[in-house]
Amino acid sequence: MNHDKSTLVLKNLGIETYKESIIYLRADSHMLLSEGFEAKTCVKVSLGKKSIIATINIITSNLLKVGEASLSQYAQELLHALEGEKIIVTHARPVESLSFVRSKIYGNELSSEEIEAIIFDIVSGYYSDIQISAFLTACVGKNLNLKEILNLTKAMIKNGERLSWDEKIIVDKHCIGGLPGNRTTPIIVSIVAAFGLIMPKTSSRAITSPAGTADSMEVLTNVEFNISQIKEIIAKENACIVWGGAVSLSPADDIIIRIERALDLDSEGQMVASILSKKIAAGSNHVIIEIPIGKTAKVRDDEMADILKNYLEKIGKNLGIKVKVLLTDGSQPVGRGIGPALEARDFIAVLKNAENAPQDLRNRALTLAGEVLEFSPKVKRGSGKIIATEILNSGKAWQKFQAICAAQGGMKEIAQAKYIHQCLALNDGVVLEIDNRRISMLAKLAGAPLDKTAGVDLFVKVRKEVKKDEPIFAIHTNSSETLEYALSYFQDNLDLIKIEQ
Amino acid sequence: MNHDKSTLVLKNLGIETYKESIIYLRADSHMLLSEGFEAKTCVKVSLGKKSIIATINIITSNLLKVGEASLSQYAQELLHALEGEKIIVTHARPVESLSFVRSKIYGNELSSEEIEAIIFDIVSGYYSDIQISAFLTACVGKNLNLKEILNLTKAMIKNGERLSWDEKIIVDKHCIGGLPGNRTTPIIVSIVAAFGLIMPKTSSRAITSPAGTADSMEVLTNVEFNISQIKEIIAKENACIVWGGAVSLSPADDIIIRIERALDLDSEGQMVASILSKKIAAGSNHVIIEIPIGKTAKVRDDEMADILKNYLEKIGKNLGIKVKVLLTDGSQPVGRGIGPALEARDFIAVLKNAENAPQDLRNRALTLAGEVLEFSPKVKRGSGKIIATEILNSGKAWQKFQAICAAQGGMKEIAQAKYIHQCLALNDGVVLEIDNRRISMLAKLAGAPLDKTAGVDLFVKVRKEVKKDEPIFAIHTNSSETLEYALSYFQDNLDLIKIEQ
Repeated sequence: MNHDKSTLVLKNLGIETYKESIIYLRADSHMLLSEGFEAKTCVKVSLGKKSIIATINIITSNLLKVGEASLSQYAQELLHALEGEKIIVTHARPVESLSFVRSKIYGNELSSEEIEAIIFDIVSGYYSDIQISAFLTACVGKNLNLKEILNLTKAMIKNGERLSWDEKIIVDKHCIGGLPGNRTTPIIVSIVAAFGLIMPKTSSRAITSPAGTADSMEVLTNVEFNISQIKEIIAKENACIVWGGAVSLSPADDIIIRIERALDLDSEGQMVASILSKKIAAGSNHVIIEIPIGKTAKVRDDEMADILKNYLEKIGKNLGIKVKVLLTDGSQPVGRGIGPALEARDFIAVLKNAENAPQDLRNRALTLAGEVLEFSPKVKRGSGKIIATEILNSGKAWQKFQAICAAQGGMKEIAQAKYIHQCLALNDGVVLEIDNRRISMLAKLAGAPLDKTAGVDLFVKVRKEVKKDEPIFAIHTNSSETLEYALSYFQDNLDLIKIEQ
Repeated sequence: MNHDKSTLVLKNLGIETYKESIIYLRADSHMLLSEGFEAKTCVKVSLGKKSIIATINIITSNLLKVGEASLSQYAQELLHALEGEKIIVTHARPVESLSFVRSKIYGNELSSEEIEAIIFDIVSGYYSDIQISAFLTACVGKNLNLKEILNLTKAMIKNGERLSWDEKIIVDKHCIGGLPGNRTTPIIVSIVAAFGLIMPKTSSRAITSPAGTADSMEVLTNVEFNISQIKEIIAKENACIVWGGAVSLSPADDIIIRIERALDLDSEGQMVASILSKKIAAGSNHVIIEIPIGKTAKVRDDEMADILKNYLEKIGKNLGIKVKVLLTDGSQPVGRGIGPALEARDFIAVLKNAENAPQDLRNRALTLAGEVLEFSPKVKRGSGKIIATEILNSGKAWQKFQAICAAQGGMKEIAQAKYIHQCLALNDGVVLEIDNRRISMLAKLAGAPLDKTAGVDLFVKVRKEVKKDEPIFAIHTNSSETLEYALSYFQDNLDLIKIEQ
C-alpha cells in the first residue's frame, strides 16, 4: 500500500515564505516518485482534522532524513503543526473553484456561490500564489460587475472575524489612496472622537504606496492589537487608530494584498470589496470615502470616480450601511512629507495647530471630519466642518490624539533619516505639475514604507514660483546606496516636478 | 556604508523550486533589515557580471550562519554560482517591463519593444512566478491581437537558440491538442522520414493534458538530446522525435509553460507564439497544424478555430514559413489509450499494421502525413495520402520508426500499470457523447502523465451500442490510493460517457 509511505515526520527548517504554503520533500521521497520529479506540483497535507494544499519544493541536500518533510512557517501555522508530529501527504484533488477563476479569466460572470468558493479556498490555503495572482489579474478594471463585487464583499466578510458594538452609529472614513502625503485619518479620528462619536479605525499598511496610515501611526505608537484590546481602547477614548491586519477582519484581503503588492496592481472591484468588507467587519455603519481624482492619482478621471462611487454607495446600501463618497482634488501631493515618519510630522503639526502646519492637509482633514460629524443626529447639515474646525482649534483634537496614543501604549518621538539630500530647481520658473506616481516611486526607492524615516520632503506646490538652485524637495534615506538609487531615478525623471520657464 | 553588508557567502542548502529564483536570508541579515521584515520582496543578486532578481525567503533557524545566504537551485544555475562564492545582494530597481504587463492587464496594446522587454526579462530571471502568472492571465483569449502575437513570437525566437539546416524544405506538424489519445506524431514522422523529407520533430511534454508526445515517446526511447546529438540523429534517419525542452529553442516558453500548468490555462495568443516560435527556432519552414474542434476539445467552435487558423497562417507568412492549418473532428478521444504508455501501445499497433490497431488513429495520421508529403515538389496535390498509406502498409514506416528509436538509444518494451480496474456500463444503450476534458481528468487523477503507465483505456466510441455491465473503459494506476481518487471522481461524473437508453 502506498498510503503508509506518505506519512512523514515534520522537521522544522524555519523557512518563512510569507503566506505561501510550501512543503519540502526529499528528492527520493515516495510521494515525489508517485507525483513525478516536477516541482510546482501541489499536494494535500493533513494533520488531524486540518488539511491544506502545499506546493512541493525538493530538498536535494541532507537537510531532511528519510521519512522527514518540512513545511514553510505559514503552512505550519495553518495546520497548527509542531516539529516531530506526523503529517500525511496525499495527492491533491484539483481545487474545484479554480475552474471558476478560469471562467472569470475568459470574461464570464461569476455566481455568488462561485465567488464564495474562491474566497473560502484562498483563506483555507488551497490556492498557490500563482493562482491568486491569476484571480486578481482577471478581476481588474471592468471585469467585475456590481453584483460580483457585492458577492466578493460578502464572501470576504463571511470568511473572517466580525466586530459588534452597542452604539447605534459607528463611523469610519477611508481614502482610495494614490495621493502621496494625504494622511488625514489621524486628524479626523481625533476630531470625531473628541466630539463623541465611536470610530474603530483599522488602517492598512502601504500596498503599493510609500506609506499607509498604519505605517505612519507606527512611527508614533503601537498599532498591533487583538480584538479585545481594541475594544478596551475604544471604551476609553471612543476611537483607535490600529493596523487592521493584526485582527482577522478580512483575512482573504490580507492574503490577496501581498500579491497585489508584488504586482503593483490595484483592481477596482477588489478595492471596493476590500474597503467595504473591512469596514463592515469592523462593525461600522456610517462611512465617508474619499476619492481623489488626478491625472497621476489612483483614479484618473471623473468617469472612473463615478463608477467607484456608484459601486461603493450601492453595495454599501445593499449591505445595510450608509456610505457617502466625496470626490476630491488629486492633482498633486497633500502636505509636505511623503513616507511614514515625514507624514507623521505633518499631521502632528496640524493637530498641534502649529504655525508651519501644511494648510492643504488641515483643510482636507476638516472637510472630511465635517462630513463624518454630520452622520450624528446632533449635527445640522452644513455645520459639520465648522464644528470640526472648532474642535481642532480648541486643542481638543490634539488632546484626544495624545489620549489615543496613550491608550495604545504611549507616544514616541519621531525619528529622522540619516541622510537628507536637497534637490534643487534646474531653472527659474513656475511649478506646473507634480507627478504623484513618480514622486511616490522616488519615496519608495528612498526606502519607504519599510524604512519608516525614509521618503521625500516636498517644498513646492503647483503654481509656486521657484528660483534656479532653490531646494524643491529633499530625499530622506538611511543608506548611501538607497540614496544613489533614488538620485539615479530622479536623474532619469527630472520632469517629475515640471517647472515652466 | 551599507554596501559592504550586502556581500554574503553562498551556502548551498539544496532547495529546488523549479525555475523560480529564491534567495534565503537570515532573519537578522542587514539586507533584510533595510528591505523590511516582509517576504515576497525582490532583491538583485549579482556574481561577477551576472545578476538576477530573486524573491526573499527568510530563514529563522540556524541553517545559515551570519554572513551566509542561500539560493534556490535555479537561481544558482542562472548565476553559475558555487558554494563559498561571494554574492552581492542589493535593492532591486523596479523591473520596467512590469509596467507594460500592467498596461496589458488594463487592455492596452503592447508595442514590439514592450513585448520584447517582457520576454527578455522573463528569460533573464527578472520575473517572479506571480508576475509571470499575471502576464499570462492578461494575454488570454482575445486580449492579444495579431500584431502582438507576431511580436511575441519574434521575441520568443530571439531569446533562445535557433537551428539551421542545409536542406531547402524542412517539414513539421503540430496539433493544438485537447484531444485525448490523438498521438499521430510518431506515425507521421515515420512515414515522412521514410519518404525522404527532413523532419526535426521536437515535442513538448503534457502541459494540462494526460500525455504529450515527448511523454509518450519516452516510454519507448530516450527523448533528451542536445542540439549536436539531434543533428546526428537527423543526419542518419531524416528525423527525430525528441523533447523540445532539453534544447533551449524557446526558453521563455519553457518558463511560461510551468505556470500555465499550475493554472491549467492555455492562452490563445501564447499558444500561437509558443507553437510558431518552437517551429521556427527548430528551422522548420513548412508546417501542418491540426486544430481539432469539439464541444469538449481545446477549441470548441469554428469561430475560435478560424481565429487561430488566421493567426497561425498570417504570422507564419510574415515570418517567412508556410503554415497549413487543418480543422479536424474533435468530438471524442482518438484511439483507445489515454496516458503515455497506453498511447504508445496504440501508435505502435498502427505502425506495425496490427489487426487491432485503432482505425481512427491510423486514418487521422495518414491524412496529416499526406498533407506533409504534399509540401514536397515530388508529390502531386491530392496524392499525399495515397503515398502515405503505401509507405505505412509496406512496413517502411515501422522500419523507419525502429531506426529512429535505435538512433535515439534503442527501443524499450512498454511497461504496464500495476492495477487495471474495469468500469462497466450502467445500462444498455448507445454511446451518445464522450467528454474529452473529463476523461482526460480521469487519466490525470490515475497518475498520467508523470506516472507513465497510468491512464484510461477506452473501449467504446460514440454511436457504439453497449450492454449493461459491459466494460466501457479501464483505469490503469500504480497505487490503490490513486485508483480510489480516480474512482471517486468517476462516481461524481458518471455521465462523462453518456449512454442513451
